[in-house]
Amino acid sequence: MRNLKIIKDYLLHPAGSVLIEQGKTKVICTAIIQDKVPPFLRNAEPAQGWITAEYSMLPGATNERFRRERSKVTGRTAEIQRLIGRALRAVVDLTKIPGYQIIIDCDVIQADGGTRTASITGGCVALYDAFQKMLKEKLIDENPLIELVAAISVGFQNGKVIADLDYEQDSQADVDMNIVMTESGEFVEIQGTAEGKTFDDKMLQEMLKNARESIAKLIEQQRKLYSEK
Amino acid sequence: MRNLKIIKDYLLHPAGSVLIEQGKTKVICTAIIQDKVPPFLRNAEPAQGWITAEYSMLPGATNERFRRERSKVTGRTAEIQRLIGRALRAVVDLTKIPGYQIIIDCDVIQADGGTRTASITGGCVALYDAFQKMLKEKLIDENPLIELVAAISVGFQNGKVIADLDYEQDSQADVDMNIVMTESGEFVEIQGTAEGKTFDDKMLQEMLKNARESIAKLIEQQRKLYSEK
Amino acid sequence: MRNLKIIKDYLLHPAGSVLIEQGKTKVICTAIIQDKVPPFLRNAEPAQGWITAEYSMLPGATNERFRRERSKVTGRTAEIQRLIGRALRAVVDLTKIPGYQIIIDCDVIQADGGTRTASITGGCVALYDAFQKMLKEKLIDENPLIELVAAISVGFQNGKVIADLDYEQDSQADVDMNIVMTESGEFVEIQGTAEGKTFDDKMLQEMLKNARESIAKLIEQQRKLYSEK
Amino acid sequence: MRNLKIIKDYLLHPAGSVLIEQGKTKVICTAIIQDKVPPFLRNAEPAQGWITAEYSMLPGATNERFRRERSKVTGRTAEIQRLIGRALRAVVDLTKIPGYQIIIDCDVIQADGGTRTASITGGCVALYDAFQKMLKEKLIDENPLIELVAAISVGFQNGKVIADLDYEQDSQADVDMNIVMTESGEFVEIQGTAEGKTFDDKMLQEMLKNARESIAKLIEQQRKLYSEK
Amino acid sequence: MRNLKIIKDYLLHPAGSVLIEQGKTKVICTAIIQDKVPPFLRNAEPAQGWITAEYSMLPGATNERFRRERSKVTGRTAEIQRLIGRALRAVVDLTKIPGYQIIIDCDVIQADGGTRTASITGGCVALYDAFQKMLKEKLIDENPLIELVAAISVGFQNGKVIADLDYEQDSQADVDMNIVMTESGEFVEIQGTAEGKTFDDKMLQEMLKNARESIAKLIEQQRKLYSEK
Amino acid sequence: MRNLKIIKDYLLHPAGSVLIEQGKTKVICTAIIQDKVPPFLRNAEPAQGWITAEYSMLPGATNERFRRERSKVTGRTAEIQRLIGRALRAVVDLTKIPGYQIIIDCDVIQADGGTRTASITGGCVALYDAFQKMLKEKLIDENPLIELVAAISVGFQNGKVIADLDYEQDSQADVDMNIVMTESGEFVEIQGTAEGKTFDDKMLQEMLKNARESIAKLIEQQRKLYSEK
Repeated sequence: MRNLKIIKDYLLHPAGSVLIEQGKTKVICTAIIQDKVPPFLRNAEPAQGWITAEYSMLPGATNERFRRERSKVTGRTAEIQRLIGRALRAVVDLTKIPGYQIIIDCDVIQADGGTRTASITGGCVALYDAFQKMLKEKLIDENPLIELVAAISVGFQNGKVIADLDYEQDSQADVDMNIVMTESGEFVEIQGTAEGKTFDDKMLQEMLKNARESIAKLIEQQRKLYSEK
Repeated sequence: MRNLKIIKDYLLHPAGSVLIEQGKTKVICTAIIQDKVPPFLRNAEPAQGWITAEYSMLPGATNERFRRERSKVTGRTAEIQRLIGRALRAVVDLTKIPGYQIIIDCDVIQADGGTRTASITGGCVALYDAFQKMLKEKLIDENPLIELVAAISVGFQNGKVIADLDYEQDSQADVDMNIVMTESGEFVEIQGTAEGKTFDDKMLQEMLKNARESIAKLIEQQRKLYSEK
Repeated sequence: MRNLKIIKDYLLHPAGSVLIEQGKTKVICTAIIQDKVPPFLRNAEPAQGWITAEYSMLPGATNERFRRERSKVTGRTAEIQRLIGRALRAVVDLTKIPGYQIIIDCDVIQADGGTRTASITGGCVALYDAFQKMLKEKLIDENPLIELVAAISVGFQNGKVIADLDYEQDSQADVDMNIVMTESGEFVEIQGTAEGKTFDDKMLQEMLKNARESIAKLIEQQRKLYSEK
Repeated sequence: MRNLKIIKDYLLHPAGSVLIEQGKTKVICTAIIQDKVPPFLRNAEPAQGWITAEYSMLPGATNERFRRERSKVTGRTAEIQRLIGRALRAVVDLTKIPGYQIIIDCDVIQADGGTRTASITGGCVALYDAFQKMLKEKLIDENPLIELVAAISVGFQNGKVIADLDYEQDSQADVDMNIVMTESGEFVEIQGTAEGKTFDDKMLQEMLKNARESIAKLIEQQRKLYSEK
Repeated sequence: MRNLKIIKDYLLHPAGSVLIEQGKTKVICTAIIQDKVPPFLRNAEPAQGWITAEYSMLPGATNERFRRERSKVTGRTAEIQRLIGRALRAVVDLTKIPGYQIIIDCDVIQADGGTRTASITGGCVALYDAFQKMLKEKLIDENPLIELVAAISVGFQNGKVIADLDYEQDSQADVDMNIVMTESGEFVEIQGTAEGKTFDDKMLQEMLKNARESIAKLIEQQRKLYSEK
Repeated sequence: MRNLKIIKDYLLHPAGSVLIEQGKTKVICTAIIQDKVPPFLRNAEPAQGWITAEYSMLPGATNERFRRERSKVTGRTAEIQRLIGRALRAVVDLTKIPGYQIIIDCDVIQADGGTRTASITGGCVALYDAFQKMLKEKLIDENPLIELVAAISVGFQNGKVIADLDYEQDSQADVDMNIVMTESGEFVEIQGTAEGKTFDDKMLQEMLKNARESIAKLIEQQRKLYSEK
């Protein structure tokens, strides 16, 4: 697994903000609190809040200039931001933030593979901090975060499992899998895609095993951010 | 599993066209051949073709009117059509259709759960027929289809695996999983999402087992369409 | 005139839904009731409801793939759906559906000329059924449908009037005329366009006469759908 | 009929440009020559050119501010500019302007009913002048204009035909009909719409008769613009 | 300086409307009153109104056809309409028009340089007239216009200052500067741009001096429009 | 003036990339080389390249979440990126980069006033580095950068000139002026706007003087980045 570095309180304005670096991949994740919920929750019973995510890439993040999505969002971006949102909602008790929406913005400063999984791992920290702020400001009474969540990519290359693929590895892997898992070792999301070659059950099980171990390490590092204080 | 019905040659104009009914879900899948490839493949070495998919829902397909996507495509639609495209490309040797793009259009006439998996299962048949037509018209020499592919949704509800969820079941399930598998029993795509509750490894394995059996039955029915003739 | 076939209650969810086939042209027409009116009617005196229409073509409906209108609607589509809406509103007493908007969705499954006129003829039946449902559910007290309405295309080719043109005939005709008429034989809409050659009064009168007779036959078949029950 | 005034050579830059005033309605019509044809004509046999139209309304043209169409064009605008284009193409031999497209821009400075018919009548004059310029500059050899064309609106109010309706009359009329006719008295386009009340054949014939007489007068005035010189 | 001509009450419907001609440049400026304010002012303390501007070019206004901005507005247009809005707001006491927004629409009929400055000079007259109308209709009690405002372009060509540049001069000038100034000789806006060559302080001072004198003349002519009556 | 910090080679992929911090304002500026020019330069004589800029704000950069510009770009953004582009082009000999376009992307990570001026100052350094890379890779023969350029905001508050305004000062200032100047002390751009109060010539001269001194200091720091190496 590549080197992981999470800098908390990276920016001045958002309730939570981190710079997460995983190898050469760098993502700014912020959590911003809004005191309104999306229309479909306005009359929800019981009242509940919402967590949503947006994902974007700076033009200079990639090898070839990444064109800004200024007239519409590509399918890839839509897919990634839906994944981040689902992953984070899975570890939050939304009834504990009634009337609030928290937007997790993930802006990739530099891309070298694994930007969506880094966004989830970093986004969880930003969200943690936003909830702490809400508790401190008495906007809510109880911590809505059920447990920590993190994500990793695993793949198969030349008959071997590899985890935390960089861009080079990712483009050569036969299978590309993104796993989101909680601190208690339960699955939140599994997305595995055959790239060129299909994969059998044995390969799947190996990847799942590796992902479980890798995520445990990531969550350990998330946890340390708070115990250290 | 719900009742499956596939009507081939459903429309006059497309190279391949089917109406697939899975329970009350009805999707028209067509395969249309274009003699050009997308820009990123123009100078590919070796030369290759492409398969892409579009997915849409008729306004009258759902219980509440489904608003037409006329100014932009939602994230859900983008996600689904990318899945269909990937699933079908996984069983095709693209170097055998150099210079051609085949567009698989999946239009949901009536929705009762499982529209994306039905689109893959039906889309594979439309694609099969389009390839037959290309062979017959000598546009290509060899059948590019490596093997058949089909897809199913599986879920977990009240501690039990259920397959081929209808809309009602889907909205109550704790886990929602879509599996795409080939005739030879290999995975093409696994997408599992915790809905409200996370899931453990045991649940995952049960769902995978059920999906494998269900897909085998679907592919048997696809196969029959051709042996019958 | 080509063979006409109308299948009622074609779909599960909409208040009214038909599959209309006129020759090889096939259109799904649905009528969906919404309990709100467009902004410009909110304070209308006396209170009234609204009927509007949307028209679309499946990509596989035409000989060359019909590109989905996902970022904007073409002028042709805009023109057609405005025509359908006007035609149906002309036979409805809108003050009898105060507070309701009914959307008529016309989705062309297969196109072989006359899709806009088939949409009107089929849309009228879907609307009839939606009104019956509203009466049954006591949403309204009286039937708002004043009389039935249907439409036909007529043209001039080689000095002869032809009615209900298929795609081939339509592209060769010198004049293309769409007529919408009520059960009582009054005009709702006349749209005649010189294609290549202008036309004189004699030709116009012949086309009008033919259209009148053709529409009478169409309405007879609409009427039969209800008397049979 | 309201007072008609056509000022030729109204603007400096376009090949043809007029200010047409019909009662209080004022429209600037320009004809601009481009040395390219739309994609669908690139390989036409025999080679031919094209005429297309755009229509727009200044915000201050109407009683309530008319919102600029800056993100999309409304159905009404699309319908009108298609009508203008068809009307003018009907009197032009497009094979005499191979390789050229002429855009007729109609910008309504002040609106008081009949803006689409004034656009056609004025657009024909702008087009005439553009053709003269092309002949003079030897871009073409023969005049492509077969004959003049003009348009008028007629309606029915309180049992009487009225022609050239202003905004007030137009919003109260039971029937609204736009007729486009050539100098030789042939029809180019007939668009009649029941507004509130349907109409019978007798009413139709009266409107057609009145339109024929009115258009003859308009064309007489167009003709005078050239004979006077 | 080129010849200036301002025709007041140019259109029927708007509260204020002028045709301003500066040399061959012609712009229609209208002022339309709306009884609502933009969202960001809804709870302003003290209550205030707003003035905003829109700018557009007719396709026939320029030498090459100016393409309509129908799907998005270019940066140039955005920049110009923001400038016009700021310039006019600078001479208005917005607290004297609480609850109202006035839209200044500037539509360029013919362009020969200086369209943005002519829009400001003409827009000020349209605004003046709209305020007079509001006073007369007792919508407001006091004249919100603090003083008149006008604008001019100045540039540097071959070592000499030139004012009120036409299109030809503008495209050859080394520096292009737009100055907006009040009746009392204070600056509202200064925008100077090096085109090809940078400029020194001496050149700047010369341009400012010339602009001051030119604007004084423009305001004199604005003033005359009212004293004459 | 606030503290200035420029970190060069901030990102891996772009030809030039800096993080510029001015007080609490932080902007990532990158320069990316493309081997094509915009359409309007394709046949330019003499051949020349182009420099253009894009500007964007991260959602977490501001106090209230800054909404992503995903369907259209606001007028403010359009204005800023045009300013950055013009400012940088003014110090480049475009005929020395024929066939190349360099895109300067300015992404504001944190905003506290002066983001557009910091973008110019930082963008100049990124551009310098991109040119060095082009020289090293022999894409070009001579350095196209004529001299360095930098920008500063100056304003007037309570009768005093202040330079390099932070957000707080900027929102209270009576005048807001952005000045772009070269190393040799010539003006590239002057944009001064009265905010609430107009300003006289004396104020203007004071602001210009202050801006000149401030920019000299900024350019000194830019210069140091290169002399140090």
